[in-house]
Amino acid sequence: MAKWVYDFEEGSEQMRNLLGGKGAGLSEMTRIGLPVPPGFTITTEACKDYQKRGYISEEIKQETLEHLRKLEEKTAKKFGDPENPLLVSVRSGAPVSMPGMMDTILNLGLNDEAVEGLKKLTQNGRFAYDSYRRFIQMFGDVVMGVPHEEFEKILSYHKEKNGFKSDVELTEEVLKEVIADYKKLYREHTGKDFPQDPMEQLFLAIEAVFKSWNNPRAITYRMLNKIPDDLGTAVNIVMMVFGNMGNDSATGVAFTRNPSTGEKKLYGEYLVNAQGEDVVAGIRTPKQIDELKNEMPETYNELLRVANILEHHYRDMQDMEFTIERGKLYMLQTRSGKRTARAAVKIAVDMVKEGLITKEEAVLRVSTEQIDQLLHKMIDPKAEVKVIAKGLPASPGAASGKVVFDVKEAAQRGKIGEAVILVRPETTPEDLEGMAHSQGILTTRGGMTAHAAVVARGMGIPCIVGAESIKLDLENKTFVVNGVTVRENDIITIDGTTGNVILGEVPMVEPELSGEFEEFLKIADELRKLGVKANANTPEEARRARSYGAEGIGLCRTERMFLQPDRLPVMQDMIIAETPEERREHLSKLEPLQKKDFYEILKEMDGFPVIIRLLDPPLHEFLPQRERLEKEIEELRQTDFDSELLKKKERQLKRSKELSEFNPMIGFRGCRVGIIYPEIYEMQTQAIVDAAIQLKKEGFNPKPKIMLPLIGHVNEMRTLREKVEKIVKDKLNEAGMNLKIEIGTMVEVPRAALTADQIAQYADFFSYGTNDLTQTTFAYSRDDAEGTFLPYYLEHKILEKDPFMTIDRDGVGKLVRIGVVLGRHANPSLEIGVCGEHGGDPESIEFFHYAGLDYVSCSPFRVPIARLAAAQVSVKEKGKTVFVDK
Amino acid sequence: MAKWVYDFEEGSEQMRNLLGGKGAGLSEMTRIGLPVPPGFTITTEACKDYQKRGYISEEIKQETLEHLRKLEEKTAKKFGDPENPLLVSVRSGAPVSMPGMMDTILNLGLNDEAVEGLKKLTQNGRFAYDSYRRFIQMFGDVVMGVPHEEFEKILSYHKEKNGFKSDVELTEEVLKEVIADYKKLYREHTGKDFPQDPMEQLFLAIEAVFKSWNNPRAITYRMLNKIPDDLGTAVNIVMMVFGNMGNDSATGVAFTRNPSTGEKKLYGEYLVNAQGEDVVAGIRTPKQIDELKNEMPETYNELLRVANILEHHYRDMQDMEFTIERGKLYMLQTRSGKRTARAAVKIAVDMVKEGLITKEEAVLRVSTEQIDQLLHKMIDPKAEVKVIAKGLPASPGAASGKVVFDVKEAAQRGKIGEAVILVRPETTPEDLEGMAHSQGILTTRGGMTAHAAVVARGMGIPCIVGAESIKLDLENKTFVVNGVTVRENDIITIDGTTGNVILGEVPMVEPELSGEFEEFLKIADELRKLGVKANANTPEEARRARSYGAEGIGLCRTERMFLQPDRLPVMQDMIIAETPEERREHLSKLEPLQKKDFYEILKEMDGFPVIIRLLDPPLHEFLPQRERLEKEIEELRQTDFDSELLKKKERQLKRSKELSEFNPMIGFRGCRVGIIYPEIYEMQTQAIVDAAIQLKKEGFNPKPKIMLPLIGHVNEMRTLREKVEKIVKDKLNEAGMNLKIEIGTMVEVPRAALTADQIAQYADFFSYGTNDLTQTTFAYSRDDAEGTFLPYYLEHKILEKDPFMTIDRDGVGKLVRIGVVLGRHANPSLEIGVCGEHGGDPESIEFFHYAGLDYVSCSPFRVPIARLAAAQVSVKEKGKTVFVDK
Repeated sequence: MAKWVYDFEEGSEQMRNLLGGKGAGLSEMTRIGLPVPPGFTITTEACKDYQKRGYISEEIKQETLEHLRKLEEKTAKKFGDPENPLLVSVRSGAPVSMPGMMDTILNLGLNDEAVEGLKKLTQNGRFAYDSYRRFIQMFGDVVMGVPHEEFEKILSYHKEKNGFKSDVELTEEVLKEVIADYKKLYREHTGKDFPQDPMEQLFLAIEAVFKSWNNPRAITYRMLNKIPDDLGTAVNIVMMVFGNMGNDSATGVAFTRNPSTGEKKLYGEYLVNAQGEDVVAGIRTPKQIDELKNEMPETYNELLRVANILEHHYRDMQDMEFTIERGKLYMLQTRSGKRTARAAVKIAVDMVKEGLITKEEAVLRVSTEQIDQLLHKMIDPKAEVKVIAKGLPASPGAASGKVVFDVKEAAQRGKIGEAVILVRPETTPEDLEGMAHSQGILTTRGGMTAHAAVVARGMGIPCIVGAESIKLDLENKTFVVNGVTVRENDIITIDGTTGNVILGEVPMVEPELSGEFEEFLKIADELRKLGVKANANTPEEARRARSYGAEGIGLCRTERMFLQPDRLPVMQDMIIAETPEERREHLSKLEPLQKKDFYEILKEMDGFPVIIRLLDPPLHEFLPQRERLEKEIEELRQTDFDSELLKKKERQLKRSKELSEFNPMIGFRGCRVGIIYPEIYEMQTQAIVDAAIQLKKEGFNPKPKIMLPLIGHVNEMRTLREKVEKIVKDKLNEAGMNLKIEIGTMVEVPRAALTADQIAQYADFFSYGTNDLTQTTFAYSRDDAEGTFLPYYLEHKILEKDPFMTIDRDGVGKLVRIGVVLGRHANPSLEIGVCGEHGGDPESIEFFHYAGLDYVSCSPFRVPIARLAAAQVSVKEKGKTVFVDK
Repeated sequence: MAKWVYDFEEGSEQMRNLLGGKGAGLSEMTRIGLPVPPGFTITTEACKDYQKRGYISEEIKQETLEHLRKLEEKTAKKFGDPENPLLVSVRSGAPVSMPGMMDTILNLGLNDEAVEGLKKLTQNGRFAYDSYRRFIQMFGDVVMGVPHEEFEKILSYHKEKNGFKSDVELTEEVLKEVIADYKKLYREHTGKDFPQDPMEQLFLAIEAVFKSWNNPRAITYRMLNKIPDDLGTAVNIVMMVFGNMGNDSATGVAFTRNPSTGEKKLYGEYLVNAQGEDVVAGIRTPKQIDELKNEMPETYNELLRVANILEHHYRDMQDMEFTIERGKLYMLQTRSGKRTARAAVKIAVDMVKEGLITKEEAVLRVSTEQIDQLLHKMIDPKAEVKVIAKGLPASPGAASGKVVFDVKEAAQRGKIGEAVILVRPETTPEDLEGMAHSQGILTTRGGMTAHAAVVARGMGIPCIVGAESIKLDLENKTFVVNGVTVRENDIITIDGTTGNVILGEVPMVEPELSGEFEEFLKIADELRKLGVKANANTPEEARRARSYGAEGIGLCRTERMFLQPDRLPVMQDMIIAETPEERREHLSKLEPLQKKDFYEILKEMDGFPVIIRLLDPPLHEFLPQRERLEKEIEELRQTDFDSELLKKKERQLKRSKELSEFNPMIGFRGCRVGIIYPEIYEMQTQAIVDAAIQLKKEGFNPKPKIMLPLIGHVNEMRTLREKVEKIVKDKLNEAGMNLKIEIGTMVEVPRAALTADQIAQYADFFSYGTNDLTQTTFAYSRDDAEGTFLPYYLEHKILEKDPFMTIDRDGVGKLVRIGVVLGRHANPSLEIGVCGEHGGDPESIEFFHYAGLDYVSCSPFRVPIARLAAAQVSVKEKGKTVFVDK
């Protein structure tokens, strides 16, 4: 028979999938003797059972009742007892943390009689009735869907009527009036009286938690965070402890280290005489945890002790919720703490130094998304900026954009690529989509653990919270701060690392690797098997790539070099040339420029291999647009009907028509052009070899490799290799120089992978061009697919993932594997890498590791990500580490 | 040690590769006791040795001399002997027959002294000096390159001077003058005297034969006929026998059966008092072989006896060369006779009936190219035609085209697709290219074995020879016949089956299968494993397919149905519709028309499966051309700026722009459209099922199958299958009918083949769309490649074969095999076929057989070819037959 309910004493951290994160944490803390209020957990299996049935089974109800009775015994209180009532909180807890997504109900068990019991027990009528008031509000809102605002209206009405400024001033009498109005509101909305039977309250609340698993916010969150839909949530029933029993009571959250910087120091906030939701909601601005040391030194020390135990126990930074009831500390939750990327890196590196975790664990502690965040832009320190306000630095990085006050508008405009900064008083889980599509988030209320802060950190979006000096006027879509009025669509910049709000757009600088970041990536380098190179086409890109740790250039495109203004006209002359001699003449003008390009790039990458791809795109891409030419010719004809310019334009137009194609992506390009116009590759090869010879003479160590694009047949490879090799040898012989220049190919059409054994006989290396390989394997023209069917396919899960972002393992991946096996079989010394965009995608990198590639090559900005991803898959493959949920 | 030379007694038919076809035939005839003049063969290995060295090795020379000495002993004559000279012919003979390609020298051994010996020996001075004259001419032309015409000029001069009309009238005295002039000519051109040493003559002649292997004509012939370049030719040295020793001598060629009709009756031609080249050159019109019965009854009977022995020995129709010297028959060559397609079929079927060959042998005796010829057009028997001339029906089939007199012009204009009829006095091996690119060939001279006739039959080009009534005027580019003047570029029609030359273009009819043709294909059907279906889109095509023996339709495209004028506007309305409802409304108008289409096709194919492919092309293909729309809108705006028509055109233009693509071939088409606009496939499925239901009710046996195009991912297949299947089931349930309608897919993108195991779970059948699969596997846009790099690739052998004609086994073929293995593994009952153009290509059919496909589907016209090709590969696989060279 299934067991649906576990007392905290029965559970443990190992049962996370069954008990959810919160339940497992409470059980584990109970197990190791930390102060946790008694309670029990209804499992995720029960949730799944509910989802299937649509109601809570009798069996589960019975088992819940049994555990409730045990809880009554343990606490010596009774559910609904008018003398000594047992009050509980009902809290959701999924196996994977989903902050703000699921619902919590406190003070459950209160009714018109029990509230009197609570009053007697605590000798505090205000407290008892405030608890009842909170309970009705929370229950009405969360369980029955009575609008939150309506409760707030009633509360505000009574506060105003009595001249109260804060909730704390509410007296028992006023609270009773509030409760009466709340009940009326409840009845109006639900058609029923507020339930007085605690059992009814309990099961309605449990059901509400189960239901909330499938509310739209939860679904969106799971989608955004790639959390499976079938995990289910557990429900925790915990004896209430009260942070609002007076000034010797408090509630708060704390991190064992600073989640923003990673500093090893207890960090957090608390509110005296408050219940948990007061902190999370960000309505009252809480105190820093340091102050607790003065206010309640003993309890503070107890908290420190618990924090230390938990961090060593879990071997990770912990995010804890606690309540202090009349001086006594209760732990209500512990979990691995969310952290900024910067903190994640520092904590991982520090913990390795402290001997708390291994290097292998460390590289699994920082996600590649976090590394991505660290590579975000910062405001140029040299820039003069106009800071108009300051708030809490809730999520690092800087962002500029147009001010938008409406969440839906932010979502819409952000989706189509507009840079917007969302400005709100605070955020709620409903705002998720708008937040996700904003460049940055600015709120005027809330602390570092407010909803906006937590979510923005998770998404890696710069965020400032609690910028209280800003006066929002949502109706007129403006805000005023220090005399400055900012209107909708004005541009502002926020710096989530400093908390500065700046007027206008400001210059940004690209991030650098330094300090712990570099230390961390060096740990990753120690552990990875895959090499990491960069795709770089200019000396600047090469320099950046090197500074980011690239071990060479995996793809240096040469065509962009021809698009520069001093070269394009010559290139165009070459294309309209009618004889090889004429072509050669124009190419000879380009040769010294090409040589300079290669010289500079090879110099930047001195000592590292640089794979130079010979000309790839169709020639018509270099000619002026057809419409433009036609117009120009029309104009020229009217004035100067026999000029050289006119003739040239006419030849360009003629050639452009000749070269125009139905499907240029799979047309006359790549090595096909190189074979039919051999002069082009001749010139490029000469330029490469000449550049290398010059560098070598100057004492450098150039390592150029020549890559032939779009090879699909061994005869293409053989023919071109012979030609290129001859030029290389002749040049080197002439210079009396010994230099190995390898010749290889892009594998980017299916046939190349399928006949890799043949092609590998003439190739020193393969580089998978997975962008094109994906296009041809799927028969998807990327330019067309992304505007037509691909979004539909992704939305409707015809495709799980965008195959241009993450490699399609079943199809394209199979070709990659086939190519590796056949290629290495024919040529055991064949070096194999990838230079498509997938080379910078962690999930794809994992695949390339397992497929046995030698290296990945990606955008310079993604090199650090690739270094980490490669290390992570190596570590996972070794399987030697403890896996800790981040 | 290598043996370079074989006496005829030492060789046999089995040594064809070594001795060449002629040498092997002479050896074999010697071996089985037929009358062959003594001689020996220098092997093809010697030729290869020569090609490598550039000269004839001493070893080969020595061995040749030894065999020459044996020949002298055998014949009791001596080389160069002034009393009893040995004369020989030197004839080439490659392992594969290359008619007219290689060179022959007769009467070798004659010199100023030996000619006197010959005169004494034969008591015939005229004969002796004519032989010497011929020898000098042939040697000068073939070995030394002295222009043929210059010899002819000298001969004509002497004939005119003496008032002779034919060569036979030349007297000994005149011949001596001719010889003197010939020698002068020889000296002028070569700078040397005509060689008097027979040994020098011999080795120069042998070397000339070796050299001729690589003359341009030979290379072209081999290229056109796909004969490997490294076979080499043998050289046969044969004692001369003389057909020109008087009226009891003759020379001729004969076939054991009629090579044009296949009739079982000795067939051939001969010339009395002539040497072999007189027949082949077509200068004198020879007599029919039947006349020999009267002229030389005994020799005729001997020839009949020999023919009968040879046919039974070789178990194939033989093409024999013979010479009668003073009443005695000598066989100079035998080989399998070239024949028309019609003859090939009849001979194969007859020989099976005669018990001479097995069915397996029979299907290997007719080539698929010959079947292709039989499927050529004929002149409509009901057509009224104006026959202006009659010639010999040298190669069957009818053709119309513009008259062209110049061979080079014919080649040029034919290459670019113009239909030309080449009209010449006669043809020579130099004319090969022009002949190959003509629709038909007409010559005014020559017999059925003249060059034009032999070559045209081989190429399957309609040809008439010996149309002597036509008076050609090449200078003015006209011909006159029976008072009609035909000028260059006038259109004529030739009927190579009847010999009729017709003025103007005439209606043609498609060929039918009947008589022996049908019998032959039924034999093929008995032997083949592969099924043969047709690609047919209309009831007419379905009918033809069935009459050609198709066992169903493997691809019925539905898009062409929408292009008909009554449907296109509705289709266009559907495409510009903005809601599913609107689309459905327009589609509902198309549905009854679609139903009718399917009804008719299914009816034609009653009892056979019909695979209907749902809509495949991109939608913009159905909209009017962009330019046309823009123009129309411009015009409409000027007159009627608010009409419904204008609005519609504007919507069409807008939609056309929305739907336009960079690479439509790999864009928004196929099942991608079907998934995003499900209404289209819904309508088509309904129409299919409704048509089947109606037919079933009417007592027919419809077998529709539904094929989804461009599937690349299992989710596409699953989604669409579910939708289609539901409609099928609902419709059938509604009709209370039990009918199996299978659902399958085209495999035409690499990913489908690579993930065939996944897709096969939801597919009842696969049909390889190898046209698109070739495009995507190579990344070749066919439309672009054929105009840019593909011709170059084929010419320069980057690609051995056009992958769109013959399947690329290494690449595309590998995908096919992968798909078969994975697909069958996941779904053992999966039916697999191919419906690309390759389905009608014999070489590809061979591959599909070995790849384990169930059927091929091709154009109706290629169904008979596919039936034969499938049988041939089955027979070859069984390996139970004797392989006879055709």
